[in-house]
Amino acid sequence: MRLKMVLAYVGSAYSGWQIQEKPSPPPTIQGALEAALRIVTGQHIRVFGSGRTDAGVHAHGQVAHCNVPDDRAEQDWRRCLNALLPADIRILSAGPVHESFHARKDALSKTYVYQFWTEQGFTPPALLPFVWSCGSLNVEVMREALPHLAGKQDFASLQNAGTDMESTVRHISSLELQALPPLPYYPTHAPMLALYVTANGFLKQMVRNLAGLLAACGRGRLNAADIPAILAACDRRALPSPTAPAAGLALVNVVY
Amino acid sequence: MRLKMVLAYVGSAYSGWQIQEKPSPPPTIQGALEAALRIVTGQHIRVFGSGRTDAGVHAHGQVAHCNVPDDRAEQDWRRCLNALLPADIRILSAGPVHESFHARKDALSKTYVYQFWTEQGFTPPALLPFVWSCGSLNVEVMREALPHLAGKQDFASLQNAGTDMESTVRHISSLELQALPPLPYYPTHAPMLALYVTANGFLKQMVRNLAGLLAACGRGRLNAADIPAILAACDRRALPSPTAPAAGLALVNVVY
Repeated sequence: MRLKMVLAYVGSAYSGWQIQEKPSPPPTIQGALEAALRIVTGQHIRVFGSGRTDAGVHAHGQVAHCNVPDDRAEQDWRRCLNALLPADIRILSAGPVHESFHARKDALSKTYVYQFWTEQGFTPPALLPFVWSCGSLNVEVMREALPHLAGKQDFASLQNAGTDMESTVRHISSLELQALPPLPYYPTHAPMLALYVTANGFLKQMVRNLAGLLAACGRGRLNAADIPAILAACDRRALPSPTAPAAGLALVNVVY
Repeated sequence: MRLKMVLAYVGSAYSGWQIQEKPSPPPTIQGALEAALRIVTGQHIRVFGSGRTDAGVHAHGQVAHCNVPDDRAEQDWRRCLNALLPADIRILSAGPVHESFHARKDALSKTYVYQFWTEQGFTPPALLPFVWSCGSLNVEVMREALPHLAGKQDFASLQNAGTDMESTVRHISSLELQALPPLPYYPTHAPMLALYVTANGFLKQMVRNLAGLLAACGRGRLNAADIPAILAACDRRALPSPTAPAAGLALVNVVY
């Protein structure tokens, strides 16, 4: 029986999604899931995610699939896995899905949010694991940059080295920047900027490079008019801004 | 020179605000502050807070004062204390104040927020330290209860044992319940209820008992009409609901 799981995690304590086959493997989300499934079923069950998240990246809506024994059709997978998983990984839902379902290959689009904390000099401790404390940003300049980054384009300049992709063309169907009150502790002002990015797929650290580029615009180090040439170069070295930190990033939705 | 500090902390790792004079004292917010001040000044400096927060209770806007050596008038206290404090305690501002200022005695009112997570069966791991996962609540019934709890009243029934107070009359000047989207991961729905309480003072665990009472109303175990008799008893034993967990509570503002 094929099982589809939707999960949330705080990635701070993990070396990313993907299991690392090493003598002393670091903790990973996939590893924690497979360890829980091994306790429930007594078998080694491989889990496939919709995509890898980097070390320190969070998720609220990551999707994964695996094959579980057919005689477990009555199992309440959400409840039993949540009882075994660490508190920073939670199953939102888990249930049977068509045998042909594949969490990565069938994904039509994914949405990430990247959170910038823009208040100079102070970040609320509760938010430290979830934001990039980048100081003040000019939101208007950042908004001017957005149209240059949306649409179907070759995003090779926003791809870090390490994974070979057949094509580096992706379609960003939605790119929005919102000012948000981050917690009820901030009822009256909104020093958090949330960048929502939806695309049919993402290159390695593409959202973090996009966030780094936008922050450079917000700091006056780059202009919206510089972006076409950066993308046209199809080379990460054409992008002068650093990759934004992992903590600000979360995978929030996968559409099938 | 008297120094006034406004601070934020995630209380999860601390045994509350107040230093415990024991052979092996547990970590406290006041203890961490005094340790940092000792490094900066070479002296033991006593810190006075606007009030104690319990173990696991958070703050975004706690106020404290202390006396620092007069020859340190040029010191950037915010910056140097933040460099020495653990990441889960942050100074928002620190500066000189009139010699007669007293963080507790001069407080005119304080505001707390209590956060209820009302989605059955699942709490986002990022929010676990900051909410009470109490399951679904009937907000309308809770709102009916609010007028019975506001105003100047004897709140002895909402006071846990352990501290003797001359008077148990307090004035709740504002009591509001708001549904909030807790994080950008939840752009479309708001399963978090935030109870804001402002009063001229609070009895021991009064907000947590208030939250417990309101949750009992939201679960149909108590009615708004039961509240006058509970308060009139002036006895904690007249309140049938348990004290709500510390994690949901945060001190958000002190007015002088």
